[in-house]
Amino acid sequence: MSAIRIGLLGCGTVGGGVVRLLRDNADSIATRVGVPVEIGRVLVRDPEKERVPELPKSALTIDEKDVLDDASLDVVVEVMGGVDPARKYVCQAIDSGKSIVTANKMLLALAGPEIIARAAAKGVDLAFEGAVGGGIPVIRTLRESLASDSITELSGIVNGTCNYVLTRMRQNGLAYSDAVKEAQALGYAEADPTLDVGGHDAAHKLVVLAMLAFGAKVAHEKVHTEGIEKIESSDHDFVARFGYAVKHLAIGRDRGDSIELRVHPTLVPRDTAIANVNGVLNAIAIEGRALGPCLLSGRGAGDMPTAVSVVADIVDVARARHSGKQGNLTRAVRLQDRTVCSIDDVECAHYLRFRVFDRPGVLAKIAAALGDANVSIEQMVQVGGGDAQGAAADIVMTTHIAKDGDVRRALEKIGKSDYAMSAPRRMRILGGPPATRGRHS
Amino acid sequence: MSAIRIGLLGCGTVGGGVVRLLRDNADSIATRVGVPVEIGRVLVRDPEKERVPELPKSALTIDEKDVLDDASLDVVVEVMGGVDPARKYVCQAIDSGKSIVTANKMLLALAGPEIIARAAAKGVDLAFEGAVGGGIPVIRTLRESLASDSITELSGIVNGTCNYVLTRMRQNGLAYSDAVKEAQALGYAEADPTLDVGGHDAAHKLVVLAMLAFGAKVAHEKVHTEGIEKIESSDHDFVARFGYAVKHLAIGRDRGDSIELRVHPTLVPRDTAIANVNGVLNAIAIEGRALGPCLLSGRGAGDMPTAVSVVADIVDVARARHSGKQGNLTRAVRLQDRTVCSIDDVECAHYLRFRVFDRPGVLAKIAAALGDANVSIEQMVQVGGGDAQGAAADIVMTTHIAKDGDVRRALEKIGKSDYAMSAPRRMRILGGPPATRGRHS
Repeated sequence: MSAIRIGLLGCGTVGGGVVRLLRDNADSIATRVGVPVEIGRVLVRDPEKERVPELPKSALTIDEKDVLDDASLDVVVEVMGGVDPARKYVCQAIDSGKSIVTANKMLLALAGPEIIARAAAKGVDLAFEGAVGGGIPVIRTLRESLASDSITELSGIVNGTCNYVLTRMRQNGLAYSDAVKEAQALGYAEADPTLDVGGHDAAHKLVVLAMLAFGAKVAHEKVHTEGIEKIESSDHDFVARFGYAVKHLAIGRDRGDSIELRVHPTLVPRDTAIANVNGVLNAIAIEGRALGPCLLSGRGAGDMPTAVSVVADIVDVARARHSGKQGNLTRAVRLQDRTVCSIDDVECAHYLRFRVFDRPGVLAKIAAALGDANVSIEQMVQVGGGDAQGAAADIVMTTHIAKDGDVRRALEKIGKSDYAMSAPRRMRILGGPPATRGRHS
Repeated sequence: MSAIRIGLLGCGTVGGGVVRLLRDNADSIATRVGVPVEIGRVLVRDPEKERVPELPKSALTIDEKDVLDDASLDVVVEVMGGVDPARKYVCQAIDSGKSIVTANKMLLALAGPEIIARAAAKGVDLAFEGAVGGGIPVIRTLRESLASDSITELSGIVNGTCNYVLTRMRQNGLAYSDAVKEAQALGYAEADPTLDVGGHDAAHKLVVLAMLAFGAKVAHEKVHTEGIEKIESSDHDFVARFGYAVKHLAIGRDRGDSIELRVHPTLVPRDTAIANVNGVLNAIAIEGRALGPCLLSGRGAGDMPTAVSVVADIVDVARARHSGKQGNLTRAVRLQDRTVCSIDDVECAHYLRFRVFDRPGVLAKIAAALGDANVSIEQMVQVGGGDAQGAAADIVMTTHIAKDGDVRRALEKIGKSDYAMSAPRRMRILGGPPATRGRHS
């Protein structure tokens, strides 16, 4: 074998970055792989646009068959995004014996187990470092440390848009809507930001992380998903009083009989590393039984960081292909159906906020409603209210660890009371009882 | 090949962890490698001690030849520590065609280039993830991202003892000597803590990191090394006023024509992730031209985290061996002699502290001495002093970016003056002009 030839599906910003990195680092990549890595064909929408001046026109095609049916290609790199037709193309490439590198989180979240099984059956490799956390080597770390360890929990800032918005609200006092507009103006948020600020993008990434960390085959609808849309500037001030910062986290915990998978705004102690990962940066904290805690942080998106991850995958896959021992990356992922624990059964401490009419006895009623539901108060602050009967007051508190469903029921009851001016708000606090596997170790 | 057979040099806490992880995860490791990984022979000091009940007595030996001359062994794992005889054994193992996994930072710092050249000439692999940062996958990340990127700078908390002592001083107000005693009592510091608190251990690790990050072949004596012994509790309070925390960092920067390699107490902004990596945790921040910033944090020492790294290396090396394409890990490290920039030529901002007799005009004299040396003051606080002529006062300040040698000369002059009660103290602030490679990108 004199070279490893790759085909590219898509050549947008990430694809262009991959082309550039492969060209600029051809020598060092050839040393690592054992033979040069060459770009054979590239599927594009419009070859006239010629986004990548480094590529000869003859390499470009608008017909996917020119890539998928080209028997001289060893590896197909999918950087077109979206689920269809990416899924079909990737499956066809696998069936024709090519190894796959993809940075497509949505494809993996929706069709990961199917694609992995297909690749395993065919004995080809499938690598996807670029799918989660951009240039952060989290997939690699999970994969490699898992050769000899088990992950008990993970929590990550995996959506840069949410982190940017929350950072601007907290550090600069921006209102939510202004922070979103600013993120849009800077290109950090889409015109329709729902997928990001609603937590759905983070849920997709959590599904991918859970495949590796917990060997879990999980439909993304099973992830309890909350966005950041309801957080107010004043929430940031209140949680700061209690020593916390609000981060939008994707959390996975292995309870042994089930796994927790949830995406929601989360209070983390201000003097921790993850609380200080700001702006568009991402971070993933993992807890390994043998490894202990490990935090990885960096640019979670962007063409060049993601391209670095894609090229690292290409090197891995190409090296295995060249050595004739491919398929190990795929075989190492062993998926099984795992029960996802109901959010009601999650146990953690809470931040609660009640906007009430400031009447005598209201606090007692709230405390009683919480107590009846087995929720005990840790710290409490009342803000506003005063002389005028019926003035609005905010009662803000943190609770000890409580069952999520108990908190929900108490809040529903309080929300229906005559003293509540609006539905109570809550955010969960990071932590809780140790994950089951950790408990036994 | 029906199995990959490994020989262990040393079986202390890390070695025992490796044996345990290899046994407990035999299936998943075999899947990744392609064949099972078996422990052949283990060199120990005293086989009667039998530290690892999992190993049959027949595997243990006190004669290194039983490991080094055993032609059935594919990989030698060196976890005995120290430079001699580890260096001799590793070289012999390479010469007999075995691949090497080591977690020995001192061996690599003192003899890394020699060992790497030997392994490259013989075409065997050499892996050393466990040598820096325990379970943190920093070597892997540097190695893999460097396939297509170049590192412009790195800075790391790479010594857990120093980080523990500084954390306890800052968070709990402990005096330096009390914090060191506590670290010793907890097993975080040696009876003679000099290697750690003096910065020498961090300098060794920086030499190893610089090999990968900058391709630099550097003698460890070239690293400008300062310890944490002179930091006082009050320094933590003063730097907090300016918005910083003190961390003991190992810093490497590529200036193009030369590299900066320095280990010293460093002020980092308090609201950054690395400033909040506390206790015995380690962290390494790298800045890649394409990757951007990346921070990796976790347990920097301890038997199990380090064993996880060693086993990940064993899997890599065994997989390459099994595929018949070994030597790529070694070939990918290309070392050259790099000029280490004199500390006098480093440019950064400074924290300065002067203990002076509180007389009229002293501040003006200090400011003049600094100004004469091209050092300009950014912020200043005077503490103490008062009515009594000649009372002691602390003048504490931060400077704008200045040449290190200019600061040194100014401090020498001030230290010799009649108003100085003791030698001025200084700490460097993280940052400075962009590294050269970054500047051109």
